[in-house]
Amino acid sequence: MEIVLDVYGGDNAPIEIVKGAVQAVNEKGGYVLTLVGKENEIKDILSQYTYPSDRIKIINASDVITNDDVPTDAIRKKTDSSLVVGINYLNENDDAKAFVSAGSTGAVLTGSVLLLRRIRGINRPALCPVLPSVQDKNVLLMDCGANVECKAANLLQFAQMSSAYSKCINDKDFKPKVGLLSNGTEEKKGSPLNKETSPLLKSCQTFDFVGNIEGRDILSGDVDVVVCDGYSGNIALKSCEGTALSMFSMIKQGILSGGLRAKIGYLLLKPVFKGIKTKMDYNKNGGAVLLGLEKIVIKSHGSSKGETIKNSILQAIDLAEKDIIEKIKNELASN
Amino acid sequence: MEIVLDVYGGDNAPIEIVKGAVQAVNEKGGYVLTLVGKENEIKDILSQYTYPSDRIKIINASDVITNDDVPTDAIRKKTDSSLVVGINYLNENDDAKAFVSAGSTGAVLTGSVLLLRRIRGINRPALCPVLPSVQDKNVLLMDCGANVECKAANLLQFAQMSSAYSKCINDKDFKPKVGLLSNGTEEKKGSPLNKETSPLLKSCQTFDFVGNIEGRDILSGDVDVVVCDGYSGNIALKSCEGTALSMFSMIKQGILSGGLRAKIGYLLLKPVFKGIKTKMDYNKNGGAVLLGLEKIVIKSHGSSKGETIKNSILQAIDLAEKDIIEKIKNELASN
Repeated sequence: MEIVLDVYGGDNAPIEIVKGAVQAVNEKGGYVLTLVGKENEIKDILSQYTYPSDRIKIINASDVITNDDVPTDAIRKKTDSSLVVGINYLNENDDAKAFVSAGSTGAVLTGSVLLLRRIRGINRPALCPVLPSVQDKNVLLMDCGANVECKAANLLQFAQMSSAYSKCINDKDFKPKVGLLSNGTEEKKGSPLNKETSPLLKSCQTFDFVGNIEGRDILSGDVDVVVCDGYSGNIALKSCEGTALSMFSMIKQGILSGGLRAKIGYLLLKPVFKGIKTKMDYNKNGGAVLLGLEKIVIKSHGSSKGETIKNSILQAIDLAEKDIIEKIKNELASN
Repeated sequence: MEIVLDVYGGDNAPIEIVKGAVQAVNEKGGYVLTLVGKENEIKDILSQYTYPSDRIKIINASDVITNDDVPTDAIRKKTDSSLVVGINYLNENDDAKAFVSAGSTGAVLTGSVLLLRRIRGINRPALCPVLPSVQDKNVLLMDCGANVECKAANLLQFAQMSSAYSKCINDKDFKPKVGLLSNGTEEKKGSPLNKETSPLLKSCQTFDFVGNIEGRDILSGDVDVVVCDGYSGNIALKSCEGTALSMFSMIKQGILSGGLRAKIGYLLLKPVFKGIKTKMDYNKNGGAVLLGLEKIVIKSHGSSKGETIKNSILQAIDLAEKDIIEKIKNELASN
């Protein structure tokens, strides 16, 4: 199996990306990592590390797509960018199962959707991050931003795809609880899109549809999958992120202005705070998965450092080994 | 000036509502509080308290609208409910400036919109809570749920009305910073509604439009007003609330499983946690204001106890004294 890595995506490219690649091959065996980007620079960075050299392969790509590029233009014109070369390589090689990039979200999405084949029947691939929850289980939110405008048929497919994903990251025979994000839990609440989507989800047999859920239920862990259009999903995701950050700031302010007592309290509670910070900083545990294509695409956070890149690579391998694409096809065929 | 209070709305009605009423008249002078509900029961509860008896007036209403009632049906049929009697009284008496209720949000909204006069030119009244922020200033979010589907012209009016509200709760000559909630800060991001709304907000002179903001910017305090449709606003608001609750749960779990060290740390940091909890529990500081009508309507949280009801009453008086209705009219006329 081969995993393709965009070495020139993200704020810390290329050094941290290569670092993560080396960490990944040293931590787990059984696959080859294909690094895409400026060959000479990559070779230079790699020369500082010890790793099984037969498991890292380089494909040269001299151009870079940045956050300032307009995604559609960049994908069309920068044909020698690490992103375009990497996705094309993924598309053309059966043994290549997944592509990992910390590059511009818009470019990763556009490139993947334009250059990779869709799973038969899927109209809109969508982006699905794994969120933490109070109950210590993972919650999937789909779509978190790939599709601003959606139809009920799209949301049905988001539910089916993320249900398959949820089955991959949980025990065998797991039946996910799926909630539809809305402005109230009552059945009569919701946008016209919600009201059209509900009966479609209700008729699915492969997961338990629990009905409408509210923004406050996302991180509670009461559901395994939150289904929504990409616009609402993005607002919900970033509202959760922002509140977590704001609360950490408030705690910090409180400690700084609370005198010696608060400072000692903080030192004693440091492990607790660290645990919560690690939990809430879900971006470090891997990336958001773009589901709906015949290959796995993982969008790692733009600020990814080596550790996160390693986690995104291991996530890609795990999903490839569990054959998420096949699971999605089964899910689509069963409902 | 008269403030009208729905004594039979909310989970803790009527006892806590009457308690809040007494606290309010004892704390601040210069107005009469009109209590609407079952007269004999109210008199019984009032008999336990000391208060200036000429400042509390009772209007009998024998029926009650509950959360189980369908709002439109209830407003039409339960004509002797505290909610309908109270709103009608507000409508018919010039001296009555505001109505406070902790009852069903749907019923308060429907009743107010059906029974009160709108401000000339306003198409859709909307609900505006006051949120806390890292920078210790208040952030207004409008609409937080009254209007699921909106047009750009509605969002423009939400911005104008909440800008006027922001001016009421800040210093004289304050010019609010207004952000449009979207799925990205870049100008090209956003739903079709966002893209149509942006130029309308840009052309306003009475506030500073800062462009698109994301969910993560709501509690940062970088803007004074967040404008959005009621569907997205509700999701954002509840995502923020849910994350705050989830983080408190995680801190609690961490302390409980962290042994003696964590417990001592908690005791030392208790004042800090308490401060943040009070700050984040913005529902206790008053209610969400329904803006766009010729009278002030305040929806206090369903779980309101005496203290919160008192705060909502004082909030109503403050907004009446600052003549928020007039300020909204000026804002509409100036843009």
